Amino acid sequence: MNVPAEEKKTYARFVTEMRVRPDDIDLYCHVHASRYLDYVLAARLDQMERFYGMPMEEFAARGLGWFQRAMTINYKRPLAMGERFKVETGVVAFRRDGVVVSFKIFKENGRVSADGEGDYALIDMKTRRATAIPADVKEKYSL
Amino acid sequence: MNVPAEEKKTYARFVTEMRVRPDDIDLYCHVHASRYLDYVLAARLDQMERFYGMPMEEFAARGLGWFQRAMTINYKRPLAMGERFKVETGVVAFRRDGVVVSFKIFKENGRVSADGEGDYALIDMKTRRATAIPADVKEKYSL
Amino acid sequence: MNVPAEEKKTYARFVTEMRVRPDDIDLYCHVHASRYLDYVLAARLDQMERFYGMPMEEFAARGLGWFQRAMTINYKRPLAMGERFKVETGVVAFRRDGVVVSFKIFKENGRVSADGEGDYALIDMKTRRATAIPADVKEKYSL
Amino acid sequence: MNVPAEEKKTYARFVTEMRVRPDDIDLYCHVHASRYLDYVLAARLDQMERFYGMPMEEFAARGLGWFQRAMTINYKRPLAMGERFKVETGVVAFRRDGVVVSFKIFKENGRVSADGEGDYALIDMKTRRATAIPADVKEKYSL
Repeated sequence: MNVPAEEKKTYARFVTEMRVRPDDIDLYCHVHASRYLDYVLAARLDQMERFYGMPMEEFAARGLGWFQRAMTINYKRPLAMGERFKVETGVVAFRRDGVVVSFKIFKENGRVSADGEGDYALIDMKTRRATAIPADVKEKYSL
Repeated sequence: MNVPAEEKKTYARFVTEMRVRPDDIDLYCHVHASRYLDYVLAARLDQMERFYGMPMEEFAARGLGWFQRAMTINYKRPLAMGERFKVETGVVAFRRDGVVVSFKIFKENGRVSADGEGDYALIDMKTRRATAIPADVKEKYSL
Repeated sequence: MNVPAEEKKTYARFVTEMRVRPDDIDLYCHVHASRYLDYVLAARLDQMERFYGMPMEEFAARGLGWFQRAMTINYKRPLAMGERFKVETGVVAFRRDGVVVSFKIFKENGRVSADGEGDYALIDMKTRRATAIPADVKEKYSL
Repeated sequence: MNVPAEEKKTYARFVTEMRVRPDDIDLYCHVHASRYLDYVLAARLDQMERFYGMPMEEFAARGLGWFQRAMTINYKRPLAMGERFKVETGVVAFRRDGVVVSFKIFKENGRVSADGEGDYALIDMKTRRATAIPADVKEKYSL
């Protein structure tokens, strides 16, 4: 993601544990490439609630939403049927109207399954356009 | 579905053509059992638009939605990766606040892949409760 | 499911805890009707491993698989974004070449979200046809 | 993708038409970010069959498969419920053991919904490791 280096600070990283569901499996009997994106999203939502102190519902109540702008993902080792895995995510940079989040997905044996970065825009749900991150939200997310 | 026999009339049946997507495939390399339900739903939406003259958007504009109440499905022959298939559906009975729809899914070779019945409730989206089918809607759906 | 009453015994029931993922949500902001089928399947796989002492991998190693023959599901109260829920399942009847399993899905508040029955055939993966349940497997599943 | 510029030639581009299914929709009532990856994959499979003259089944018959190594995607304008869209893809570079494919997804109104690049490895399904692209396959894909 094109983020000026000086803006890249170190923010807290959090971990969510999940498990592969049958419907996630593809014709090669491992997890379909697209599902990793939902795992990252599920982990972020869990972490917003448990660690950042501002769950999705609170954004919705303020008329805000998060849309994905871009995603880069590298697949290293596939997840298998029923496998337990961990998704570690953390903010790597703030934009005026969004955040860049990096993630690592770890297999049950501790090795990296996938990693990458997602670029998310904060959306004013009335206009469906990107909007500046409110100061109090930025503070909560600056762990 | 528990529908009194005298209420079961013969209504028009319609067909939608679709194709299996990679993500629909499960560990046995055929379509995951849950996906057939989305195929039926996709076919109904297509047919509402093309044949009944009242697409989903029009229901939404009137503050109405369709929730599923029950589904019975029999799996006969699995659909395969990339397979082209047809979904035939039709109303089999009206309730005061919903419809019962039967469906048949046909494989590329013409044989039956799955069949069954779905029970749908018309929902007032404000109260999120079932509501009587408006007369003009019932007329449109009584083909 | 058409199972003679005298064959319906009471078998053990087991519970698996899960959580709704973002991708499970549909246009009404609750879980898409088709996903409940994957939740039941995920719960069965978990319970095969944890309670029956014969996980899916062991069936695969013996050249066996489980295909779904039929499913009946009643939707009572929708699951919501991120909701934690429980899936209780148990065998209600054995067939020569399969099992009938009933299930109940409970919302975070303890109320029933959905219930129903699934009919599963044991498959010889070489012929892809239903096959008699081996005696040792039946014993393991007769808890 | 890190591909030396001199290797980037211009190869043929192909288009596949598809339609958004109900299950693709997320809580914002547009297509879930992860589904675009399956749309690209579905388009490639369709185009392998219709344009390259070597469908997936033929790779499978030769003991070969395609695993995804990396994906970069930019989301521009969301696809909506039931929307008809087009997926244009084409090879942008060959590696010894894989290909880089770029894609553009077009909305019903012709505007770009998403674009990006995917990096795919050709896999020897016995070893589950990347393998050199056979000469005849490379020729077929060098349109």
